[in-house]
Amino acid sequence: MKRTVTIILMGFGRVGRAFAHLLEEKRNLCAERYGLELELKAILELGGGTVFSRHQELSRLLKNASPRLQDDLSWNPGLTLEEILPKMEPGVLVDCTVSSLKTGEPGLGFLNKALECGWHVATAGKGGLVFDFKNLMKKARTKGLKIKFSGATAAALPTLDVGLYSLAGAEILGIEGILNGTTNYILTRMDQGLGYEAALSEARQKGIAEPDPSMDVEGWDTASKILLISNAVVGTEFTFRDIKVEGITNISPEVLRAAKEEGKAVKLLGTLLKQGNQFAAEVRICPLEPGHPLFGVSGTNKGITFFTDTMGSISVIGGKSDPRGAAAALLKDILNIYR
Amino acid sequence: MKRTVTIILMGFGRVGRAFAHLLEEKRNLCAERYGLELELKAILELGGGTVFSRHQELSRLLKNASPRLQDDLSWNPGLTLEEILPKMEPGVLVDCTVSSLKTGEPGLGFLNKALECGWHVATAGKGGLVFDFKNLMKKARTKGLKIKFSGATAAALPTLDVGLYSLAGAEILGIEGILNGTTNYILTRMDQGLGYEAALSEARQKGIAEPDPSMDVEGWDTASKILLISNAVVGTEFTFRDIKVEGITNISPEVLRAAKEEGKAVKLLGTLLKQGNQFAAEVRICPLEPGHPLFGVSGTNKGITFFTDTMGSISVIGGKSDPRGAAAALLKDILNIYR
Repeated sequence: MKRTVTIILMGFGRVGRAFAHLLEEKRNLCAERYGLELELKAILELGGGTVFSRHQELSRLLKNASPRLQDDLSWNPGLTLEEILPKMEPGVLVDCTVSSLKTGEPGLGFLNKALECGWHVATAGKGGLVFDFKNLMKKARTKGLKIKFSGATAAALPTLDVGLYSLAGAEILGIEGILNGTTNYILTRMDQGLGYEAALSEARQKGIAEPDPSMDVEGWDTASKILLISNAVVGTEFTFRDIKVEGITNISPEVLRAAKEEGKAVKLLGTLLKQGNQFAAEVRICPLEPGHPLFGVSGTNKGITFFTDTMGSISVIGGKSDPRGAAAALLKDILNIYR
Repeated sequence: MKRTVTIILMGFGRVGRAFAHLLEEKRNLCAERYGLELELKAILELGGGTVFSRHQELSRLLKNASPRLQDDLSWNPGLTLEEILPKMEPGVLVDCTVSSLKTGEPGLGFLNKALECGWHVATAGKGGLVFDFKNLMKKARTKGLKIKFSGATAAALPTLDVGLYSLAGAEILGIEGILNGTTNYILTRMDQGLGYEAALSEARQKGIAEPDPSMDVEGWDTASKILLISNAVVGTEFTFRDIKVEGITNISPEVLRAAKEEGKAVKLLGTLLKQGNQFAAEVRICPLEPGHPLFGVSGTNKGITFFTDTMGSISVIGGKSDPRGAAAALLKDILNIYR
């Protein structure tokens, strides 16, 4: 018995496109292994979108090497999410837009509308969740819906799954994570002798750092991720106000030199620590000893360590950082919603 | 709304006792966080057992520092699982007995009886599953029941969760695991200069190696784990006949010396490799390069790496190897059965 799941995709940039392609590639596997017919019925961008009345229309669009939605025959300018949500059987809204960490928009609006119409959510965007975590979760719970956000919390590296599923029944006493590939790449290159500007410029050339890298190098991307992981896994209600954030832009050469002399590796960590009954989250530069489980996590690689009361420490390392890895994290979340 | 779950525990050795104590310790947490009242209603050993008519009887038994079931007031000689299964509301059978890898017993009998009476299973024992994986899984599926065996597949190290849940939708192209703490400890000490016999004897003194360590050092424990992980995660139907198994008892000093000179670390790996549409599993000694994600997994520590088509490689490392860690893995499986 197969179950059909309607999917609406918000955003058709690098991650959105990778997701649409991955769904196409994994169509048979999802049906055979998980009993789910995942049907991408609409893609929306700012300014309009497309509703696919037949699967062939989507296939045709994706055959184009670098498809732009606006160039497609089916482009419908002015089409909005409000318009199409009530007309479809509720399934999963997949948000691949980039939202402001200050206002949560446009993602926050999309998520709220989807939940109100009875849709589950899988999101790669952080803004909406960081801005209004508590209310979004409450709305989902009240309606018996799920919000999944592996895509916003290190994507293919399973941070939430491990914290929520593999550590069920354990108390989490602390978390340490290398959660941002760009800063880890820059720090790795600085450890190899480059200055900050040279390392950043190399990361830009390689397409690792974005044109405006401030969210990454100032620590806000890491802060968003440790905030979401903490809120989801240990039930805190953190906003940015509760997190002390340090970036790598003003890292002192002495810290790097001293670490190197002592055989340590300098990392930007998102951390959570239980003190009494309280949790405290922080983003800070930290030299790691060779025995630390994240010591060898270098370049654009990521990793996270959970410290627990019953299971000892458990570390997860790796996971592709590219759009395909993010798309795979969204697909995983959808499959697990219906498990 | 809380749900009451009846639990029968088979075996009251180190892991069984740790499990009973952990349930007592986590009673409130399970109720508050997961909405489950986990009620341990009976403990059975070879020769008899105890049915607790009130929770206080169990509490009293556990207050004894090193309780032996036979010494307890409530000990009922000759009591069997067949006798008590039909009299209780079906819940979860927790198997902490040690079963033969050659016959699967006594675990295989317990698991079959439990499934036939409508009980889910969480097991720390490998024998029954290794011996008759296919039929047990079929029986469970037919009856809509679950068999969980984190406790048999590296316990607190989440191997199955990551393979089944975190990698949903990905194709697993290969697995490499350091799955046995005893052999990894011996190899680590040999890398530090000890001979095999000296390292084994030290491991025995420290309580790391069992009095008869043959299952570990001859590779059969690792073989059982990679067999179960493979069957569960990629759907193979392996038995021991399908796995080439090498142990560490005859490891050549040249291999160790050469590895050391090249800066590599010698490990006993359980491996799974996809070749075309076929999977092949093996247990073998392997020198790992410094860049390998499991290179730094030393001493009694364990780790596993999954190689995938969409998410890159993902490694999980750590997890306590003691009875409390195994008990925590059983508890996690129970909580996830009712999620």
